[in-house]
Amino acid sequence: MTHTPPLTALRQELAGRGLDGFIVPRSDEHLGEYVPASAERLAWLTGFTGSAGMAVILPDRAAVFTDGRYVLQLADQTDGSLWERLHVIEQPPPRWLAEHAPQGARIGYDPLLISADGLARYTELNLTMVPVDTNPIDSVWTHRPAPPTAPAVPHPLLHAGRSADEKRADIAAVLSAAKQDAAVLTDPASIAWLLNIRGGDVPFTPFPLSFGIVHADGGTELFIDPAKLSAETRAWLGNTVSVSGRDALGPALDRLHGMTVRVDPSGSPVWFAQRLTAAGAKVVGDPDPCLIPKARKNEVEQQGARDAHARDAVAVCRFLHWLDAAGPAGGETEMSAAARLLAFREQVEGFRGESFPAISGAGEHGAIIHYRVTEKSDRAIRPNEVYLIDSGAQYPDGTTDITRTIWTGPDTPPAALREQVTRVLQGHIAIATAVFPQGIGGAHIDAFARRALWACGLDYDHGTGHGVGSYLSVHEGPVSISRLARPVPIATGMILSNEPGYYRPHHYGIRLENLLLTRPMEFKDANKPFLCFETLTLAPFDTRLLMPSLMTAAELRWLNDYHSRVLETVGPHLGDAERGWLARACAPIGSMA
Amino acid sequence: MTHTPPLTALRQELAGRGLDGFIVPRSDEHLGEYVPASAERLAWLTGFTGSAGMAVILPDRAAVFTDGRYVLQLADQTDGSLWERLHVIEQPPPRWLAEHAPQGARIGYDPLLISADGLARYTELNLTMVPVDTNPIDSVWTHRPAPPTAPAVPHPLLHAGRSADEKRADIAAVLSAAKQDAAVLTDPASIAWLLNIRGGDVPFTPFPLSFGIVHADGGTELFIDPAKLSAETRAWLGNTVSVSGRDALGPALDRLHGMTVRVDPSGSPVWFAQRLTAAGAKVVGDPDPCLIPKARKNEVEQQGARDAHARDAVAVCRFLHWLDAAGPAGGETEMSAAARLLAFREQVEGFRGESFPAISGAGEHGAIIHYRVTEKSDRAIRPNEVYLIDSGAQYPDGTTDITRTIWTGPDTPPAALREQVTRVLQGHIAIATAVFPQGIGGAHIDAFARRALWACGLDYDHGTGHGVGSYLSVHEGPVSISRLARPVPIATGMILSNEPGYYRPHHYGIRLENLLLTRPMEFKDANKPFLCFETLTLAPFDTRLLMPSLMTAAELRWLNDYHSRVLETVGPHLGDAERGWLARACAPIGSMA
Repeated sequence: MTHTPPLTALRQELAGRGLDGFIVPRSDEHLGEYVPASAERLAWLTGFTGSAGMAVILPDRAAVFTDGRYVLQLADQTDGSLWERLHVIEQPPPRWLAEHAPQGARIGYDPLLISADGLARYTELNLTMVPVDTNPIDSVWTHRPAPPTAPAVPHPLLHAGRSADEKRADIAAVLSAAKQDAAVLTDPASIAWLLNIRGGDVPFTPFPLSFGIVHADGGTELFIDPAKLSAETRAWLGNTVSVSGRDALGPALDRLHGMTVRVDPSGSPVWFAQRLTAAGAKVVGDPDPCLIPKARKNEVEQQGARDAHARDAVAVCRFLHWLDAAGPAGGETEMSAAARLLAFREQVEGFRGESFPAISGAGEHGAIIHYRVTEKSDRAIRPNEVYLIDSGAQYPDGTTDITRTIWTGPDTPPAALREQVTRVLQGHIAIATAVFPQGIGGAHIDAFARRALWACGLDYDHGTGHGVGSYLSVHEGPVSISRLARPVPIATGMILSNEPGYYRPHHYGIRLENLLLTRPMEFKDANKPFLCFETLTLAPFDTRLLMPSLMTAAELRWLNDYHSRVLETVGPHLGDAERGWLARACAPIGSMA
Repeated sequence: MTHTPPLTALRQELAGRGLDGFIVPRSDEHLGEYVPASAERLAWLTGFTGSAGMAVILPDRAAVFTDGRYVLQLADQTDGSLWERLHVIEQPPPRWLAEHAPQGARIGYDPLLISADGLARYTELNLTMVPVDTNPIDSVWTHRPAPPTAPAVPHPLLHAGRSADEKRADIAAVLSAAKQDAAVLTDPASIAWLLNIRGGDVPFTPFPLSFGIVHADGGTELFIDPAKLSAETRAWLGNTVSVSGRDALGPALDRLHGMTVRVDPSGSPVWFAQRLTAAGAKVVGDPDPCLIPKARKNEVEQQGARDAHARDAVAVCRFLHWLDAAGPAGGETEMSAAARLLAFREQVEGFRGESFPAISGAGEHGAIIHYRVTEKSDRAIRPNEVYLIDSGAQYPDGTTDITRTIWTGPDTPPAALREQVTRVLQGHIAIATAVFPQGIGGAHIDAFARRALWACGLDYDHGTGHGVGSYLSVHEGPVSISRLARPVPIATGMILSNEPGYYRPHHYGIRLENLLLTRPMEFKDANKPFLCFETLTLAPFDTRLLMPSLMTAAELRWLNDYHSRVLETVGPHLGDAERGWLARACAPIGSMA
């Protein structure tokens, strides 16, 4: 840090560039969920480290925005004398700017950090948005961390299931059919999938930061810091992938002059369309062509997901046993419990790290949907309360994500709580057992997960499920189970989470999450294809929290069958005490219980 | 008819006007479902009388399009040597034109017969679309029927529940809030609702054809053939509604010069936006402001709907008794049965006509989703088959629409059929009992109606429900229960149909339809408003077609409660034999049955 505070330094820089304002999204130039330290411009400028935010600077006022998850953290981390702290939904940044920017103000933006769709939300309010060539924050950010250079490594066919050559031929066919000459790839997950490579540039998601251009003949250009590439990885990429540094990207786009080029209007920085247009290419706004094939896991990836979940389940079951045996009595806390779960996972073959920061919330902390325990917030897990743990891991054969809600005992939980957990489980079962025709999207089945809750006036303010990658992002597009889901049909091979919940503010949170694999469902007489889900995740639900009399015979059957599968699969890999505990946790329950 | 065939005459007319082609939608200048004889241009030109169609003319070829419902009828009614007969989904007219029109061809269209959104589907394919000032068909259509002049009559407050002044103040407030000076109304149902008038210009829907302009100060201009207005109706409209003939419409739009005017881009003919833009008005593409308030019935309309359904139920139950007692044995046919139902309805107080052409389909005819019996297709209703009857009526206090599926007996129906009917009923019950938060749209609950069918690989190719007017259109927007429903939330007061089905091609059709009224659902602790449905329609479902062992206890309870309500409400209005029959039809069933 210099003596000049960041906001002052930035304002001086903007004035020098003839700009009246500037927008600072939290994103990096891949518009991803996790960003490297070198791209944490919002945190440098404002102090705010939440995963969703945006700052807007004007000469005489500045605002920083986040969503409901981070409102308290925003107030904690930022200086109220410098920043107006606002809720991004109640007061969207474009509207705030339109209200406060002087008439005709020139508002700068970094075209590498915002999509075409994102930019449109400013320009449609008639704001004068001026792209910058270099980010003004970078000019004043002293001690900016260097970009990451974690090695890019081969993702072997054993796990990928399909060669990069085959995948590139598939994408080439898609481009040819759409009469497009090339597609720009800006999502490192798409490139990692397409070229069968993995990396470690950002936390939790094992891809190397890079850009790509894939041509309609299958030829592919990869733009990546050469420091990340060993000779082995270069050889793995083969001769039809040309490799250059990040600096070569602009000139490569310029060479697409006269061609028709696909750029994702919501997933790619607007810089690409601007540069291509200036170079005389025709830009077509279509989704990243890798999104759907990446989401539809092939049979090797599907089997990998089953294997990874079976191994992960051993760690989770050992943790649940440990928690039940030692947790509330032994002075364990949210942090120590999360650390213990991580320690169990570290013993699992192939463990490569967590797939996201674990949410370990006791009592009232469980009601904070994206709670992340810190030294400051940490507290003991106490007897007779609800404890929620949402966690996941990366394995080379698959990515996991599981949430369990535990009653710490020893007393019987209150009836109202048991009814709520039961209704959440009924929603979970309704999704797990859903059968539906091909063509249906996540928006059409989301209500299955909510019906039992709605019936007594309850609901939860988040989606029911998200896509999950194969040793890639734990939040993967384009399909989700949500009222607001994009109209992309659920298809065979997609892995989705199934995580209905209920949150009683200031008291507790309930969420029951398994991952699902989408599979074909065969019917003798059906005149169209049908799909169903296979549950991948294997760990018991806490039956102490259930009210079996509320459940139908079919629901009880599902639960008991699931528990018997958990015991059968996980039991043989546990020690005696753990196995005994699992057998009790998986004991069948009935409506007479 | 002249000696010149219509297609030849039209082509000569087009050539004289310098046009290379012309599109002929089935719509009138209100883009409504039912059109007067004077607007049946498609039928005059092609011979095709189905309710959905379009013709496209080029110098050397011509095509006529319809949807799956009318493919056979289209082949029957049109001359294959003149017309290519095409399926509108498989071969959309804009694409057909783009493929077959010569480069640069000037394709005429009547801007009064197509919406802005509809026209865009042609222009986005780079077709040169040329608006005509007068429809060329009208120039060559000899013996064209005169436009209808059925009287417009007051719709009394007793049924409307809210005065036209109050409604106009509501709409004015909506326009003011949107900073719009006026809205153009082109849907006669909106005008009938807003001004509390009814009429009889088209079959089945009791509104007078007219146009309107409503201003942000509540002042309203009505454009209607003065022949339709008695002195009483003129007085009823009051002083703040200025009345002129249809000819005054264009000049009135021109007077909106400089104003911001709302025009519905999908519901209004594009002519309005074109004329307004030419006149120097600013056109804003927003939905008809009457759509949602019209859909949300007020308490008087809600009670009217209950009353109308209770009276209609007497006719329906008498019909079902008659059918059961005399039908299959007595040589009755699809036509005679439909006529009998109409005769029963004609005895109901306030009956004003059918709300749509009844669908009376025995056996394989029931599998044709929009079957309309004709002299030619009529056949006997035979023993031991499935008979489907979908019908409705108009009453001054409400519009009805009901479908029942009957087993003609005397044998027990096959198990597969009973399972299918039971699964359709389970879907019906899942909608009828749904509870959901405010904000949910029809696309989100549609799958409730299909889940039980999907579970065994069955489905139906139509929406689950449509909005229904109050002594207005039996198909009323903007809300429907369908995967493809527009994202408009279901709201208190809306009346929707609940009509899942299953169709076994060439064998039989199953559809079980009641109308629902949307009501608030009160919960003590809910932190947001919830909604539920009240079933309005009262008539037994044929329990001979059910397999109670498939049903949950809750489903059986719903059915038995519903039947006891039917018996209690309708029974007292029946003769002894009918009442005895109804008591048997409404007898409780159990899973032990």
